[in-house]
Amino acid sequence: MAILREAVHHRPECEYAYAHDESTVHVRLRTKRGDLRRCRILYGDKYDWPDSAERKRMRKVGSDERFDYWQAAVEPPHRRLCYAFHLSEGNTDESRSGGVDDEQLWLTEWGFEPGSADGLPTAGKTEPRHYFEYPYLHPADANDPPEWVSDAVFYQIFPERFANGDPDRDPDDVEKWGELPDRDSFFGGDLQGIVDNLDYLDGLGITALYLTPIFEAPSNHKYDTTDYMRIDPHFGDEETLRRLVDGAHDRGMRVMLDAVFNHCGWTFEPFQDVVENGPDSEYTDWFHVNEFPIEFEPRPSYDTFAFVPQMPKLNTENPEVREYLLEVATHWVEEFGIDGWRLDVANEVDHQFWRELRREVKAIDPEVYILGEVWHDARPWLRGDQFDAAMNYPFSEAVHAFLTEREIDAGRFADKATRFLMRHPDRTNGVLFNLLGSHDTPRLRRRCDDDERCVRLALLLLFTFRGVPCVYYGDEVGMTGGDDPDCRRPMVWDESEQNTALRRFLEELIELRSDHRPLRRGRVRFDRDRTSREVLVFRRILPGDGPGDGDADREENGDGEDAITVAINRGNEPAV
Amino acid sequence: MAILREAVHHRPECEYAYAHDESTVHVRLRTKRGDLRRCRILYGDKYDWPDSAERKRMRKVGSDERFDYWQAAVEPPHRRLCYAFHLSEGNTDESRSGGVDDEQLWLTEWGFEPGSADGLPTAGKTEPRHYFEYPYLHPADANDPPEWVSDAVFYQIFPERFANGDPDRDPDDVEKWGELPDRDSFFGGDLQGIVDNLDYLDGLGITALYLTPIFEAPSNHKYDTTDYMRIDPHFGDEETLRRLVDGAHDRGMRVMLDAVFNHCGWTFEPFQDVVENGPDSEYTDWFHVNEFPIEFEPRPSYDTFAFVPQMPKLNTENPEVREYLLEVATHWVEEFGIDGWRLDVANEVDHQFWRELRREVKAIDPEVYILGEVWHDARPWLRGDQFDAAMNYPFSEAVHAFLTEREIDAGRFADKATRFLMRHPDRTNGVLFNLLGSHDTPRLRRRCDDDERCVRLALLLLFTFRGVPCVYYGDEVGMTGGDDPDCRRPMVWDESEQNTALRRFLEELIELRSDHRPLRRGRVRFDRDRTSREVLVFRRILPGDGPGDGDADREENGDGEDAITVAINRGNEPAV
Repeated sequence: MAILREAVHHRPECEYAYAHDESTVHVRLRTKRGDLRRCRILYGDKYDWPDSAERKRMRKVGSDERFDYWQAAVEPPHRRLCYAFHLSEGNTDESRSGGVDDEQLWLTEWGFEPGSADGLPTAGKTEPRHYFEYPYLHPADANDPPEWVSDAVFYQIFPERFANGDPDRDPDDVEKWGELPDRDSFFGGDLQGIVDNLDYLDGLGITALYLTPIFEAPSNHKYDTTDYMRIDPHFGDEETLRRLVDGAHDRGMRVMLDAVFNHCGWTFEPFQDVVENGPDSEYTDWFHVNEFPIEFEPRPSYDTFAFVPQMPKLNTENPEVREYLLEVATHWVEEFGIDGWRLDVANEVDHQFWRELRREVKAIDPEVYILGEVWHDARPWLRGDQFDAAMNYPFSEAVHAFLTEREIDAGRFADKATRFLMRHPDRTNGVLFNLLGSHDTPRLRRRCDDDERCVRLALLLLFTFRGVPCVYYGDEVGMTGGDDPDCRRPMVWDESEQNTALRRFLEELIELRSDHRPLRRGRVRFDRDRTSREVLVFRRILPGDGPGDGDADREENGDGEDAITVAINRGNEPAV
Repeated sequence: MAILREAVHHRPECEYAYAHDESTVHVRLRTKRGDLRRCRILYGDKYDWPDSAERKRMRKVGSDERFDYWQAAVEPPHRRLCYAFHLSEGNTDESRSGGVDDEQLWLTEWGFEPGSADGLPTAGKTEPRHYFEYPYLHPADANDPPEWVSDAVFYQIFPERFANGDPDRDPDDVEKWGELPDRDSFFGGDLQGIVDNLDYLDGLGITALYLTPIFEAPSNHKYDTTDYMRIDPHFGDEETLRRLVDGAHDRGMRVMLDAVFNHCGWTFEPFQDVVENGPDSEYTDWFHVNEFPIEFEPRPSYDTFAFVPQMPKLNTENPEVREYLLEVATHWVEEFGIDGWRLDVANEVDHQFWRELRREVKAIDPEVYILGEVWHDARPWLRGDQFDAAMNYPFSEAVHAFLTEREIDAGRFADKATRFLMRHPDRTNGVLFNLLGSHDTPRLRRRCDDDERCVRLALLLLFTFRGVPCVYYGDEVGMTGGDDPDCRRPMVWDESEQNTALRRFLEELIELRSDHRPLRRGRVRFDRDRTSREVLVFRRILPGDGPGDGDADREENGDGEDAITVAINRGNEPAV
C-alpha cells in the first residue's frame, strides 16, 4: 500500500491552521479517504528545537466523498509554532513498527519524507527550517465572532408583509391582506407591525430578528435605496425603529438590519444628479458609468446589480462613497444600537471596503454580527478581516438535496456538510447563518410538496445542526409559496388558518436547542456506522473543559452530558 | 484511464483566481502531473447565462513533482465571472469524441460531472449557480506592485561594513578595516561611505539599494533599535540620509530601508521605562510582559525575538504602539522620500498591523515597495492587502540545492521553482525579492566552496530568473565568509584584492537583463525536453501585446523577440 500523496493537503494560515483563541492554534490536514489509520502532529518552538518538540495525535474530524480531515489543537509554548505531520497507514504505536506494508511518512513544507513517528523529519538539516510555520499567535488575527450569535435563534422578516401596525402609513392602493402578491404589490406591513408582535416572536422563542431593508425606497422589497439615512415613511420613522430595537432588547432579542451597499436605487439622489447632469455631475465617480448619456435600454449604460436599471452599482473604490457608506453603517449602530448587519450581494463589493467596514463597526461595538450574503464558497470573506459569517446556502442546498429533493442519501449529506464545515474555522462554523429558505427562494413547505413530515424533518435538522438557525416568517405556521414574489405573501395571522401544531413543534425545537448546550456549541461528528441511505445520524459534541480542545479521546467517544446524538429518518421504515 | 480526482485543486480568490489587472482575471487549475492532455475553462456572466458563455483553452504553465498547473486569462464582459473547468485526457477537438478510454470531466464548485466540452455542466440546473465564481473584478483587490520593481537590480548593504566615509563618526575602538569581524566588532562604516560610492554602484548597474537598519541602536547590525526617529549617530544624521537618498535618486536609483517593527532594542525608551517602573510603567502594554519583575535570565520574562533579551517584542495589537510605528513608517517616506520598506521578521507581526501599514504608506506614495521577510510560504501576506512581495528564500534554497549543494538535478529545480511560482499571482512573481545570500547566511562564494564557475552560474540564474535580483555587497568582487558574523566582513575596496573579472561578469549580467525585457517581465517556462540532470533550460516569455494575456498559442511557442531561452549547465560536459 502507499499513501496517495496527491490527495494530501495543508496550507498555513487559512482554515488549515488558524488561531482558535488566545493560546490555541487549530491545525488540520486533509488525506485521501480511508488512506490513513493514524495521523500525528509534531510541533514546538523553532528557536528552542528540538527541546520544545511535542507530539500529538490528530483526530479524524470528518470525511467527505474523497477525503478525510484530521485536526489537532495545539498550544505553542511561546506563541510561535513550527510543525510537521506524521502520516501512518498502520494503527500501531509509533514506537513499534507497523505492518509490513504500512507506509509511514513525514510531511513538512518541503514535502514528504519517509520515517517513523519517534524520529524527526530532518531533510538533512538540524534546524526545523523546512517545517510548516504558524509564526506567531496573535489574538488580533483570530476569527472572533460575537458570543451571542451561537445561542441565537433568528427570524427573518420581510417588513412589507409581516404585519400592518400603522395603517396611516400605508401606501396608496394597498392590496387586501391575504391576497397573493405580484411583483409590485403593497400590503402595508410596517415596523409598528413588528413592534406589535414582539411578544408573539418572544413566545416562539425567537431571540434575534433579521429585517430585510427598511430604508426609504420605492419598491416593496426596498433593495433599491433612495435614502440610507431615512426609515421608509411607509414603514415608520426613527421613533418606530427605536421602539422596535428597544422593545426587542427588553425581551433579550437582537435586531439585524440589511445593508444594501453593492448598489443603490435609481432614485438615490447622487444617481439622479448623474442622470440629470451627465458627465458634469460631481457624482459621476460614485457609479460605474460606461457611457454617457445614461441609457436604460436595452441594457443600462452603467453597471448595476445584475442588469437591473433600477439598481445602479455603487463605486465602493471611490473614497467619498466609502466614507458615505461607512457613515451609514456606523450611524445605525451608534444611534440605534442595532446588533447586526446583513450585507446584501456582499460578494460583489471589494474586500478593502469590507475590511474598513468591519474595523469601523467593531470599533463601536465588537458584538455586532457581520453577516455576508455569499451563496458560494465564502472563504475569501471569512479570514477574520471581513465578515463573522456568511449565509449558509451550502447548508440549505445539502438539506434540500437530502430531504426535499431526495437527490442524495444520508451518507452523501454527511459528505457535503463535512466539505463546507471544513472550509471554516470551528468558531466560524458555530455562527454560520443556516437557513432553509428566504425571500429569494421558494418556501420550505413548497419545496416539501406540502409534506409536513418533510417540513418537520428539515426544521429538526436546522435546529440540531451546527450554525445559527433562521426561520423565515410564516414558515412556522405552515405558509407556502413558490419563487419570488410568491414566497413573500402576507403573514397569516388568523389562527384558524395557521398550522398551530407546526408552530408548537417549532417551539419545542427552539426549547430543545436552548436546553442543550451541545446543540448550540458542539462540534458535528457524523456517525457513519449508524448512518444509512435513509437515516442520518450525527453527534453534537462539546469541547472539553480544559484550555484548547480538551481531551481528544473523551471527545472521540462523545459520552455523557457533553454530547447529543441526533437521528433523522427520512424513510418510511422505523430505524432502530 | 481515469483522471485522478483527488489531485485536482482549485480555490476561488487566491492564487488560483485573482484580478490580474482592471479587466483580466487569471484562473488556474491543478491536476495530477501527466493526467490531462487538454483543459478548458467555460465562463461568462451569471446574469446573462448561457448567452454570455465562452470557452477558452487553458495553458499548461508549469509542472512540479506531482502536479500540472493550467492557467487562462479571461476578461469577464461585465466584470462578473462564473466559470467551470473541462478536463480531458484526450487531445482531440471537443466537438469530436476522444479516444475510447479518454475520460472527460466537468468541474464546478459542486464537484465533478462527466460530459463533453461542447455541452454545459448542469448538475440538473438551468442557472450556473453551482459554478465557481469570481463575483466582481475590483481593481482595489488586485495585487498591484510598483512598476519600477520588476526592472530593478538591488544591492544589499550592511552599512557598518560597506565604507567609512566619515571617520569622525566612528565608534570608539573600531577594528582595522579588513580584519575578520566578531559578533561585537565595529569598523566605522556609515552612510557617507555609501554616498561616496554611489558612482561605484551606479557603474555596476545597480538601480536600487537595500540598507539593513540605520536607526539608532547599540549593536553593529542595529536590529535592536533605540530610537526609530533618529539616524544612528555613528552612521550619520538626517542630512547624510538626505544626501544618500537624493544622490541615489539623481542617479535613478531607489533606496529601501529596513523596518524592525517586530521588536525593539532593550535600550528603547518605553522598554527602559518598564524595566525601571515595572507594572506601574505606562508602557507595560507596549510589550508582552509575562511576569514582573523583568528578568533576563535564564529566559526573559517578556516576549522577545527568538529568546534574545536585547530584543523585546513589541505589542503591535496595542493601538498606541501601532500609531507610533505607523508614524515611523510614514515619516521616513514622507520626509525623506525613501522608496521601500523591508519588514524585518514580518511573519511574527499580526496581519492587521501590516494591513494598516500598507494603507498608510501607499496613501503617501503607491510606488513604495513593501517587502516582507518571510522565509516560508508567504501566501498569507501576499493577498494584495499586506506586502507587495517577500524575500524569496524558496528561490535561494532551490538554487543552492541545484548549483552549490548539488542535492537535486535540473528537473527537480524546475519542479521546486514551479511550486513556488504557482503560489503567487503572476505580477507578484515579477517582484519577488530573489537573493543568493544575505547578512543572515553564508556568502555565495563560501557555499560554492570557492568554485568561481559555480558562483557565476548562480548569478546567471539569479539574473535570468523571474523576480527582482539582489546582490549582497561584496559578492561582486569575490568576497567570502561563513555564517554570521563572518558574512559581514568589511567591503574589499582594494582593487588588487578584488575579483575584477567577476565584477565585470556581474556588470554584463546586469546589462543583459537591462537589454532584454523578457528577462525582467517575462514569465518562466521550463523546457523539460531540453532539461537534463545537469542542464537546466527555461524560457522567459513576454505576454502578447493585446489586453489580458495575449495569444496562448503564440506564447506557447515563445518565438521571436518576445522570448529568451536560458540554459545553465552545471556539469563538466558541454551541452549541445
